[in-house]
Amino acid sequence: MAVTANVGSIFPVVWAGDRVQLIDQTRLPEQYELKDITTAAEMATAIRTMIVRGAPAIGVAAAFGMVLGAREYRGSDREGFLAHLENVASELRQTRPTAVNLFWAIDRMLGAAQQPTATLEELQQHLLETAQTIAREDVQTCQAIGENGLSVLPKTPEKLRLLTHCNAGALATAGYGTALGVVRAAWAAGRLERVYADETRPRLQGAKLTAWECVQEGIPVTLLADTMAAHCMQRGMIDAVVVGADRIALNGDTANKIGTYSVALAAKAHNIPFFVAAPLSTIDRKIATGAEIPIEERHPQEIYQVGFSRITPAGVDFYNPAFDVTPAYLISGIITELGVFAPADLAQGIGAVAG
Amino acid sequence: MAVTANVGSIFPVVWAGDRVQLIDQTRLPEQYELKDITTAAEMATAIRTMIVRGAPAIGVAAAFGMVLGAREYRGSDREGFLAHLENVASELRQTRPTAVNLFWAIDRMLGAAQQPTATLEELQQHLLETAQTIAREDVQTCQAIGENGLSVLPKTPEKLRLLTHCNAGALATAGYGTALGVVRAAWAAGRLERVYADETRPRLQGAKLTAWECVQEGIPVTLLADTMAAHCMQRGMIDAVVVGADRIALNGDTANKIGTYSVALAAKAHNIPFFVAAPLSTIDRKIATGAEIPIEERHPQEIYQVGFSRITPAGVDFYNPAFDVTPAYLISGIITELGVFAPADLAQGIGAVAG
Repeated sequence: MAVTANVGSIFPVVWAGDRVQLIDQTRLPEQYELKDITTAAEMATAIRTMIVRGAPAIGVAAAFGMVLGAREYRGSDREGFLAHLENVASELRQTRPTAVNLFWAIDRMLGAAQQPTATLEELQQHLLETAQTIAREDVQTCQAIGENGLSVLPKTPEKLRLLTHCNAGALATAGYGTALGVVRAAWAAGRLERVYADETRPRLQGAKLTAWECVQEGIPVTLLADTMAAHCMQRGMIDAVVVGADRIALNGDTANKIGTYSVALAAKAHNIPFFVAAPLSTIDRKIATGAEIPIEERHPQEIYQVGFSRITPAGVDFYNPAFDVTPAYLISGIITELGVFAPADLAQGIGAVAG
Repeated sequence: MAVTANVGSIFPVVWAGDRVQLIDQTRLPEQYELKDITTAAEMATAIRTMIVRGAPAIGVAAAFGMVLGAREYRGSDREGFLAHLENVASELRQTRPTAVNLFWAIDRMLGAAQQPTATLEELQQHLLETAQTIAREDVQTCQAIGENGLSVLPKTPEKLRLLTHCNAGALATAGYGTALGVVRAAWAAGRLERVYADETRPRLQGAKLTAWECVQEGIPVTLLADTMAAHCMQRGMIDAVVVGADRIALNGDTANKIGTYSVALAAKAHNIPFFVAAPLSTIDRKIATGAEIPIEERHPQEIYQVGFSRITPAGVDFYNPAFDVTPAYLISGIITELGVFAPADLAQGIGAVAG
């Protein structure tokens, strides 16, 4: 992996000696505010309430949540410590059901605690180092995704108009981003004309987070309501689509933020390449197809309340799925740190056995 | 046309003896407020600012705008009167470019003024009667659309789950509605389980107006963010889609509220019937395909401002098309007061010569 692009300056999950500092993503873009997280329970709440969000960032945050949880152990015996750590893991696992990076990171942390000869102090130190490694690797992974993505973007026009949905940026990872990693790499290489960002209702991560990231780095960005993407494609305004992922099945079916499926259908109808950018940790090697991915439903208030305004009358019902599944046939390529795979080649490419 | 359903109780454009009363649709659902319109200029502003909106309702409002304008004439000669009326027509035509009903209604009013033997007083009375006829016919037309739509809805399941986009309801017509006319007819006939309403960003006519209308009449309604429609189809939650139209070309290509095209693409991908419900006055007999339909662009504030909240940082660009064009191949049927036509049969069915 040739990594040439700058890493950028947005790091949503940072270890600060004895606590974690999260960029509070529920406050952006109005306020850039760091939130101190000192316990595993606080981290669980931060993940659930989306102070930190985005599949890879959730993984990194959960890893540090395990570090904080480990430090809360007051006993001195090893078995008690491991049992305590399982409890912490269990609490963190219950925060969000769809993003598989959460479970991947927690399992990796539990694995790191399996060192029969280490003292508790050594174990805690090792857990911290593992979490820091996960974070560091995630940034490197994103940079590799950016470079790999750049290599498969359309060769013409020279300056591309890329559409993205939700936020798969630095804020959604340890830094740099997956889909926005590809955008950053294209921008650094002089191959980007402009990003079109879907606002991404209900939580507006496109309008709030992707737009904010682009403005921070001077990347030209046009905000669209979600209703407008297909029309822009019809008008020839979009050269390629790049989105992130919350969980990818071995056949390439991809869960991502609600609305991604619509965008993929529209891209297909216009023969516009549709790429999913995600680290290997987003691939769930245990499931064969997207039908097995659990879809989180969130509180209806996310739909009916925008800022201080209620947008709809009383007496209305709501349905608020947070993710949808884009079937593999709509996906041109899955951009990972290992390379770019057609969905049909994914399982073999990553050395997994398709179910 | 068999008209059996109740006309309902929502009338957005009503003549009140010497002025027009509009339901102020920019205030719903928070406030139900009638706005007095006493001059043609006030009517032009009301149309432009979407106090009244929806293609058929805009036509009716423009017709009454012509009545008000005619009454502002202070001269006594017939030629001066007709010249004045042309000026009023010109002002009203410039309010919104996409909905063809606006131009249709203004032309019909200008035609009604061509009575060589009438006095000015008789002409003004005739203009008023013509506008009232346009309004009355529109309600009858909507009822016929409702019945005709009911006859082509899927026969199973018995209780249908219908999805609609934006508001093509009583508020968008003289009363009863086009797409919501079909919904009302299905509800009256015991064939409706529930309506799914896209919120329809940027102006949220689904969340604000369609939801409000359904709540008024006790029709079960589930509000979705626009990102969710395709997912609901994938999950088998939608039996048919019914939307309105702002302009239909002779080949069946249909301009409607931005986002309609996305919904149509998703419906096609799931073999869900997609119906357009509109009066004949929405068909532009002068154009062969949707490529000739002008698409209105509106102020970016509609995207970045929701209620009292600005949703995105400074430095972002915007694109705010108010409509998109759904190509005929995605449309199962166009439901009119004359009957339901496949797009390919539309021109012949209405006795027009396809370009």
